Amino acid sequence: MGDKETSKDKAAGKYWIGFDLGGTKMMATLYDAKFTPIGRARKKTRPHEGLERGMERIVKTIHEALQEAKVDAQGLAGIGIGTPGPLDLDRGVILATPNLGWKNVNLKGTLEKTFGCPAVVLNDVDAGVYGEFRFGAGRGARCVVGIFPGTGIGGGCVYEGKIIRGRTNSVLEIGHMQVMPQGPLCGCGRRGCLEAVSSRLAISTAAAAAAYRGEAPTLLANVGMDLSNIGSNALAASVQGGDKAVEKIIRLAAQWYGVAAGNIVNLLGPDVIVLGGGLVAAMPKLIRDEVEKAARDRVMPSFADIYQIVVAELGDDANSLGAAAWAHTLITESWTE
Amino acid sequence: MGDKETSKDKAAGKYWIGFDLGGTKMMATLYDAKFTPIGRARKKTRPHEGLERGMERIVKTIHEALQEAKVDAQGLAGIGIGTPGPLDLDRGVILATPNLGWKNVNLKGTLEKTFGCPAVVLNDVDAGVYGEFRFGAGRGARCVVGIFPGTGIGGGCVYEGKIIRGRTNSVLEIGHMQVMPQGPLCGCGRRGCLEAVSSRLAISTAAAAAAYRGEAPTLLANVGMDLSNIGSNALAASVQGGDKAVEKIIRLAAQWYGVAAGNIVNLLGPDVIVLGGGLVAAMPKLIRDEVEKAARDRVMPSFADIYQIVVAELGDDANSLGAAAWAHTLITESWTE
Repeated sequence: MGDKETSKDKAAGKYWIGFDLGGTKMMATLYDAKFTPIGRARKKTRPHEGLERGMERIVKTIHEALQEAKVDAQGLAGIGIGTPGPLDLDRGVILATPNLGWKNVNLKGTLEKTFGCPAVVLNDVDAGVYGEFRFGAGRGARCVVGIFPGTGIGGGCVYEGKIIRGRTNSVLEIGHMQVMPQGPLCGCGRRGCLEAVSSRLAISTAAAAAAYRGEAPTLLANVGMDLSNIGSNALAASVQGGDKAVEKIIRLAAQWYGVAAGNIVNLLGPDVIVLGGGLVAAMPKLIRDEVEKAARDRVMPSFADIYQIVVAELGDDANSLGAAAWAHTLITESWTE
Repeated sequence: MGDKETSKDKAAGKYWIGFDLGGTKMMATLYDAKFTPIGRARKKTRPHEGLERGMERIVKTIHEALQEAKVDAQGLAGIGIGTPGPLDLDRGVILATPNLGWKNVNLKGTLEKTFGCPAVVLNDVDAGVYGEFRFGAGRGARCVVGIFPGTGIGGGCVYEGKIIRGRTNSVLEIGHMQVMPQGPLCGCGRRGCLEAVSSRLAISTAAAAAAYRGEAPTLLANVGMDLSNIGSNALAASVQGGDKAVEKIIRLAAQWYGVAAGNIVNLLGPDVIVLGGGLVAAMPKLIRDEVEKAARDRVMPSFADIYQIVVAELGDDANSLGAAAWAHTLITESWTE
């Protein structure tokens, strides 16, 4: 946050920006002091246009959210921005983003200079899990772990009110837990990672192959075999339409989430495991039930009754709410230090 | 701790008992305010003699440690006792101990009543990891994870000075992380747990089979094929004596610890991973080097430089030192609340 004097001055502001920076789109939400959204703006990220244009779009999106609520930048108490990593959390720098192609982005510095208020940069999945902890499916729990399958599989943990972190970077890389030695190649270059066997992308790939083999007629009729068209909703429609092969692929993937969830219960003893992301949102019951069954088989007897597996409640709002609320927590804490 | 007034009165005492309760032996150590040991007593646990006799032996062992230092019970500020679980941490009750055969043991209540000072019950591995965090190989690190292979494989995590715990019980059951789907049966009833493939017991079993096949002549000559004679030192002597098959068995097991360590780095981003227990102590370099190599293969690039893998420094003292120091931390905290 830099200078504490400056931070204190800005405490005069009472509004918070929660920003969700993703590989395809970005969203800024302006919250009042009770975290009620009062302004919102969205843009496409267009990472290929480069870092400088990207930063301009981020700044512009925040300005538009402010304008919508007729609040000016002086009214801001702080900005929280959730972004893919790896990050330098304390410096607020994106070190590299495989899905944006940007490197060494001083987000915190740029935002603080532009808007004259403290900014906090955090991992996007951590933001989502913190959002669910504060306002959603993990509300107030002593320990919440989030498992968010998507193109990869993200994870996060809020323990006694704080996001568990590494020395410099965010942690809980649940997607890279090895669940199958000598298993399929992962995007990270290793083998048998959870996300290599069961991410939404792994599911879509297997579903496309099933369509090719003639085992997924609904999927084939609806969207064909192009991976870029086989998203969570297409998968859900395929299951709904009776594609048994696709349903089986999804159940098997969910069983892997359950193995990971069971390992996590044995390791961290969370009170709540929140399943989130678009895939879970498209088929909440099917996935949650499989996860629960598989986790139960992995969990030690003494942990059997301490945890719940639930579906995320906040959808797209989780990241921006979590980012804003975490910024509030960190910035408020640093005042009272 | 029950009544705070009582606790405060006892703060007059300045000595601490650290107690290490194991399946075969128990040890009480009396520490001064700087955690220098000034009295010590040991006894066999003899769990088959039953709970009542067991409690008498625990109490007697503490009295003997006090007597050795000519300190009486009024001098005690608190007792920390590390024990296998599952436990009810807040009530200080051993719920069940597979290796003692005792159930619902109100350790905290009995010790507080007998010695008139607050007592804290914690998991034995947590005590060892906390000991290494305070005084040993993980001294002062932001996040320390311990991996202690033995009959099973214990784990613990100290994060920003606190032992990570579950709602009621201790956590970090690293031994029950599934590393091999459909792998060998574990003592916990599940399959493919880390400890099923690589505990000291799994190693001893494989070494005995190697001896049976004529591939471990040194082991066979030294101790034969009886599992109860194939402990860590016998395994080290076998490797030292040239039993290549046994060396390979140990290296493979250590590679599994490395897989687990890599998963843990990706999940928790510890600064230090401490390898401890008798097996590691008997072959520190061989095991540490294999663990490091295998972990490096599992760790994501952004975590590659943040962690160290080190060997425990405190040996048998870790548990009692850790138990005493953790009791000190919790009891002191509760005074200042």
